[in-house]
Amino acid sequence: RNDANEHDRHTVVAMNPRLTEITVIGDDDTGLIARITSLLFERGVNIEDLDQAVRQDLFRMTMRVDTSEMDGSKDDLRRALDDLCEELGMDVQVRFPADRETRQVAVLATKESHCLDALFDAWETGDPDAEIGVVVANHDDLAPIAEAHDVPFYDVGDAGGVPDEEWLLDVLADHDVDLVVLARYMRILSPNVVFRYESRIINIHPSLLPAFPGAEPYRQALDAGVRVAGVTAHYVTTDLDQGPIITQRAFNVPDDATVADLERRGQPLEAEALVEAVRLHLEDDLVVGRGRTHLRN
Amino acid sequence: RNDANEHDRHTVVAMNPRLTEITVIGDDDTGLIARITSLLFERGVNIEDLDQAVRQDLFRMTMRVDTSEMDGSKDDLRRALDDLCEELGMDVQVRFPADRETRQVAVLATKESHCLDALFDAWETGDPDAEIGVVVANHDDLAPIAEAHDVPFYDVGDAGGVPDEEWLLDVLADHDVDLVVLARYMRILSPNVVFRYESRIINIHPSLLPAFPGAEPYRQALDAGVRVAGVTAHYVTTDLDQGPIITQRAFNVPDDATVADLERRGQPLEAEALVEAVRLHLEDDLVVGRGRTHLRN
Amino acid sequence: RNDANEHDRHTVVAMNPRLTEITVIGDDDTGLIARITSLLFERGVNIEDLDQAVRQDLFRMTMRVDTSEMDGSKDDLRRALDDLCEELGMDVQVRFPADRETRQVAVLATKESHCLDALFDAWETGDPDAEIGVVVANHDDLAPIAEAHDVPFYDVGDAGGVPDEEWLLDVLADHDVDLVVLARYMRILSPNVVFRYESRIINIHPSLLPAFPGAEPYRQALDAGVRVAGVTAHYVTTDLDQGPIITQRAFNVPDDATVADLERRGQPLEAEALVEAVRLHLEDDLVVGRGRTHLRN
Amino acid sequence: RNDANEHDRHTVVAMNPRLTEITVIGDDDTGLIARITSLLFERGVNIEDLDQAVRQDLFRMTMRVDTSEMDGSKDDLRRALDDLCEELGMDVQVRFPADRETRQVAVLATKESHCLDALFDAWETGDPDAEIGVVVANHDDLAPIAEAHDVPFYDVGDAGGVPDEEWLLDVLADHDVDLVVLARYMRILSPNVVFRYESRIINIHPSLLPAFPGAEPYRQALDAGVRVAGVTAHYVTTDLDQGPIITQRAFNVPDDATVADLERRGQPLEAEALVEAVRLHLEDDLVVGRGRTHLRN
Repeated sequence: RNDANEHDRHTVVAMNPRLTEITVIGDDDTGLIARITSLLFERGVNIEDLDQAVRQDLFRMTMRVDTSEMDGSKDDLRRALDDLCEELGMDVQVRFPADRETRQVAVLATKESHCLDALFDAWETGDPDAEIGVVVANHDDLAPIAEAHDVPFYDVGDAGGVPDEEWLLDVLADHDVDLVVLARYMRILSPNVVFRYESRIINIHPSLLPAFPGAEPYRQALDAGVRVAGVTAHYVTTDLDQGPIITQRAFNVPDDATVADLERRGQPLEAEALVEAVRLHLEDDLVVGRGRTHLRN
Repeated sequence: RNDANEHDRHTVVAMNPRLTEITVIGDDDTGLIARITSLLFERGVNIEDLDQAVRQDLFRMTMRVDTSEMDGSKDDLRRALDDLCEELGMDVQVRFPADRETRQVAVLATKESHCLDALFDAWETGDPDAEIGVVVANHDDLAPIAEAHDVPFYDVGDAGGVPDEEWLLDVLADHDVDLVVLARYMRILSPNVVFRYESRIINIHPSLLPAFPGAEPYRQALDAGVRVAGVTAHYVTTDLDQGPIITQRAFNVPDDATVADLERRGQPLEAEALVEAVRLHLEDDLVVGRGRTHLRN
Repeated sequence: RNDANEHDRHTVVAMNPRLTEITVIGDDDTGLIARITSLLFERGVNIEDLDQAVRQDLFRMTMRVDTSEMDGSKDDLRRALDDLCEELGMDVQVRFPADRETRQVAVLATKESHCLDALFDAWETGDPDAEIGVVVANHDDLAPIAEAHDVPFYDVGDAGGVPDEEWLLDVLADHDVDLVVLARYMRILSPNVVFRYESRIINIHPSLLPAFPGAEPYRQALDAGVRVAGVTAHYVTTDLDQGPIITQRAFNVPDDATVADLERRGQPLEAEALVEAVRLHLEDDLVVGRGRTHLRN
Repeated sequence: RNDANEHDRHTVVAMNPRLTEITVIGDDDTGLIARITSLLFERGVNIEDLDQAVRQDLFRMTMRVDTSEMDGSKDDLRRALDDLCEELGMDVQVRFPADRETRQVAVLATKESHCLDALFDAWETGDPDAEIGVVVANHDDLAPIAEAHDVPFYDVGDAGGVPDEEWLLDVLADHDVDLVVLARYMRILSPNVVFRYESRIINIHPSLLPAFPGAEPYRQALDAGVRVAGVTAHYVTTDLDQGPIITQRAFNVPDDATVADLERRGQPLEAEALVEAVRLHLEDDLVVGRGRTHLRN
C-alpha cells in the first residue's frame, strides 16, 4: 500500500477551484436531497461531491457542483436555491469560483496579541493574495492593534467575554469573509459557525495535537512530564481540536520548566505555524482528505 | 424540546418500504456521485436519501431512491448501474422493494447454542413472515442443530475459527439473505461485510451497552463491581458494539457472583432480547435515527 | 478462580471495627512515614494497613492500627499525633472504634427533595442505629424539610450555589459526622473533603454506572438510545462517579421517552437505592475491596 | 505555584542511594504490613517510604528503609525477611545500597538491531559505570550481535515469539541485573516482571508519548496526519506506555510520508533517546515524582 496515494477524491474535489460550493444548513432536511438534486439537474448542474453532517441537531449538507454547462445565469441559480431553501426553512450559501477570489480574511482573537501581530507582519513583508478585512474578538483589548492597521475591529463579547455568534456571523457576511483565522481566540465556535465556514477556519493550538486537546495544553503537557512540546495549526471542525493538521512546530521542554516557560518558548512558534498554515491555505497548496492535509503536488 | 419528535427524516426515509436501495462499495469513488446521479435522473429516478461512509479505506455510498416514475424496467436500471459500476471498479447492489419481501434470514454463530435454539423455537411457535434460510458459523459445533431443522449449515472458519469472509458473502448472496442475525458469533465482521448489510445485521451483546463493549463483557461487569448487569440486541455498524440499540434486558448480580453465574442468568435473556429484536425488525416496527432506534407509530 | 474469594485483605482490614483509623492530610509528606511509624511503634501500636493517595497536590495517608496493646491512653496517642503533625504541617484525624459508634449522619443536598425525604422516612419507619444529625445544602430550598424534622440545616452555598467547603468541613466536624450522604447534591466534592471522609461518603447517581458518569446522565442515556436505564448508589472517591458501587436499580425506558419521563421513573429508585445503600453501610454489612463492594458474610 | 518545586518527596526518597529497597510480591497481603513493619522496627530499621500496588490480582509493596542504625548484619535482615515472607507465601527482594553498585544491565530485544547496536556502541565509546551483562530476546535473530560482543544471549521465546517470563526472570536474577533496557522488545511485560524491576526498566517507544501509545505508533501518527512525529524513552510501569518520560526527540514528517519513511527518520532518534535515557539513569541524574522525571540538581 502506498501511503502517498491515499488522498481521497472527496477532498481533492472539495478543494477544486473550478467548482461551485453549495452549503445548506438547517434543523430538518426533509425532502432536501430530492428537491435540490432535481433543481440542479434541471439546470444542467453536475454534482461532483456531496457531504452531510449533523451536530447538536443542526444539519449541514455541502455539495460541490460543476456549473460549466449550466443553463441560466449564476444569479438564476442562486435565486432558485434561495427560493427552494426558504420554502424548506433552510439557509443556503452559494459560492461560485469567482466569489472565492475575494480572499477576505477575518482574524478572531481574544487578548493575546502575538499571533495577530504576526499575521499583520506577514501581510506587510510578504504579499499574500488576500487581505485581513476585519478583526473580531470577544474582548476589546486588541482593538488598538486593528486600528493601527486601519482594519475594522468588532468586540462581539459581553462583559464576561461570551461572544454573540449571530453578530459574529453578520460581521463575517458583511465583510465577505472567505477565511477565518483563530489567532488565540479562546472560545469554542458552535456548529452554527463552523458549518458555514467548514474547511475555511484555521486555528492555532498550543500542543502537538492529537496530544493535549482542550483547555490549558501547556499545563497538560507539563503534568504529563513531556520533554518535547509543540504547537499545531489546523482546520477547525465541529470536533474540538481534532480537525486536519496543517503545520506543527516542536520545541524542547527544559527540566523543571513552568507553564510560563512553555509559553515563552511556544508563542513565537504558535505565530510561525499559524502564519505558515494561512499562507499554505491562501496559496491553494493544501488538499484535505480523510482527516489529513496534504500538499498539492 | 420534545424528545419524541427527534426522529430524523434521514432514517425514516432509510426504512421507507417503498424505496429502492442502491449500495455502492469500492476503494475509490472518483466521479461516482456525478455519474450515478446523472444516470438516475436521466431515468426519472428521484434520490430521496444519500449516505456515505469510509472505513479502512473502503468506501460505501447508499442511496434510497423513488422508482415509481422511472423510465424503463427494473432490470434496465439494474443493468445500467452494473455497467457503470463495473466501469468505475465498484460493486453495486440494488434492492427493489419487492426484493426485500423474500425475508431470508441468515444466523451466524460460533459454539454457543442458546440463541440459535431460541431463534428456531421462535419460528416454530410464532409465525414470522420470514424464514431462517441458512446458518453460518466459524466452527462446526452447531451443524447438528441446523440439520435438525433442515437448514443448510456452512462452517466458513479455518482450524482456528478464522472466518473466510468472501465465502461468507457468497453464502449470504446465494441465499438472498435480507437479515443477518449474530447469535453469539464471536468474530468481528469487517466493513466489507457490514457495508453490504448495513441496517440489516442484528447482534446480541451480553452487557447493557454502551457499558462494557468488546471482549468478555460479563468479566468486565464483575470487575467493575456492578449490582445490575444485562444484555443488548443492536444493529451492527462498523463501530464495534456501538450500533443502535434495539432491546435490552437487565438482571441483578448476586453478591460474590462469578462469570459463570452471570452467564447462567444472562443467557436466557440474551436469547429473549435477540428474538424480540429480530421480530421487531421483521415486522417493520423499527425506525433508526441519529444512532437510536424508535418504534414506528 | 473463585470470584467469591477475591476480597482483598486491604479492605477487610479497612472496615475492621476493632481498628483505629488515622488519617493524615497535607501538602507535603516529607519524613511523615518514618516519623509516624516510629511514634506508633514506640507506643506498642501495630499498623495493620496503610494507604496513600495524592490528588491535586494534596497528600493523604490512612493507617488502620491496632491499639489493643497500646502503652498510654487514647488521649496520649491523639496528643502525640497532633503534636507530630503540627510540626510537619499536616492535619491529622484519629478515629478510635468508640468514636465511630456515634453514627452521626450528614445529608448533603441541593434542591431536589425526593432522596432527603426518603432518608427521613426510612429513619421514622425503620430504626437504624444512627441519626441524621445535620442537613447541609448549597441552596436554601430544602431548609423547611430539615426544620420539620428538627434537624439543623446549613446553606453553605453562595448566591450561585458555589459551596464554601471550609464551612462544610466545620459543620461536619462540629456534628461529629461519621457518614456523609449525598442526596442529589449537585456539586463535586474536592479532595480536601473526600480525603477526610474516604469510605464514609455515599452518593446516588442517576445512571447504571460505569455508564454515563458526570452531568445529565438521563440525557446521556437518552442520547445513547438505551432501552434500560437505572441508578447507582456508590461510595465517593476522588475519581468522579467511579467509587465502589453499593446498590443499583434498573428500569425500562419507554419508546420516545423524554428526560422528564426518565426522571419520573428514576427518582423513586434513586431514593430506594440510596436508602438501601445507607442501611447496608450503617449495619456494617459492606466490605470494600479492589474498587468493589461485597456483603459481609 | 512554582512548578519547579513540585517534586514529591516520595520519589526523591525512592531514588535515595543510601536507602535499602525491600520489594514484596505475592497474591495476598494478609498481615504483611503489621508483620514486616514490626520486624523492621525490632531491628532498628527506619521506614522512609512505602508504596503499594495491585495489578491483575498480583500485590506489590516496596519499602525504602534506612539501615544505618540497624541491629544485626545485612544477612540477618535478609534472612529474617526471607523467613517471614516464606511463611506468608510472598516473594521478597532486598537490595542494599551496595547491591546496587553492580550495575548489570540486561537488554531485551526482538528483531530490530538499531537500538541494541547503539547501546553497545555507547558502551565502547563512552565509559558508563555499568556493563551489559546479558541480552534476552523472544526471537534468535540478534544472537550474532550479542556474541560479537561476548555477551550471553538467551532466546526465551517459543516458535511464535511468545516469551517464557519465568525463564526471563531467572536469567535476570542469575545475572544480578539492576537495569532492564527494552531495545525495541515487541512484547508487553507482565506485572510479575514489572513489579520486580519497577523504576529499573527503560523502554523506547516510537512516538511522542502520551500520543500514540500501543501498537504501530508510526502508522497511528500517519493516520492522524501529524507534521511532527517523535520518539520517547520512558520508565516502564504496569500501565502500558504511560510510565514517566525520560527523553524525547521530535522530527518533521514530510508530506506524503510512508511508515517506512518515518522508520527511516525515527530509528536513529530511537537509539539516541534510549542511550541518553540509560546514561541519565546510570549516572543517577534522574528523580521520579508524580509520574514525571526530573534531573537531579
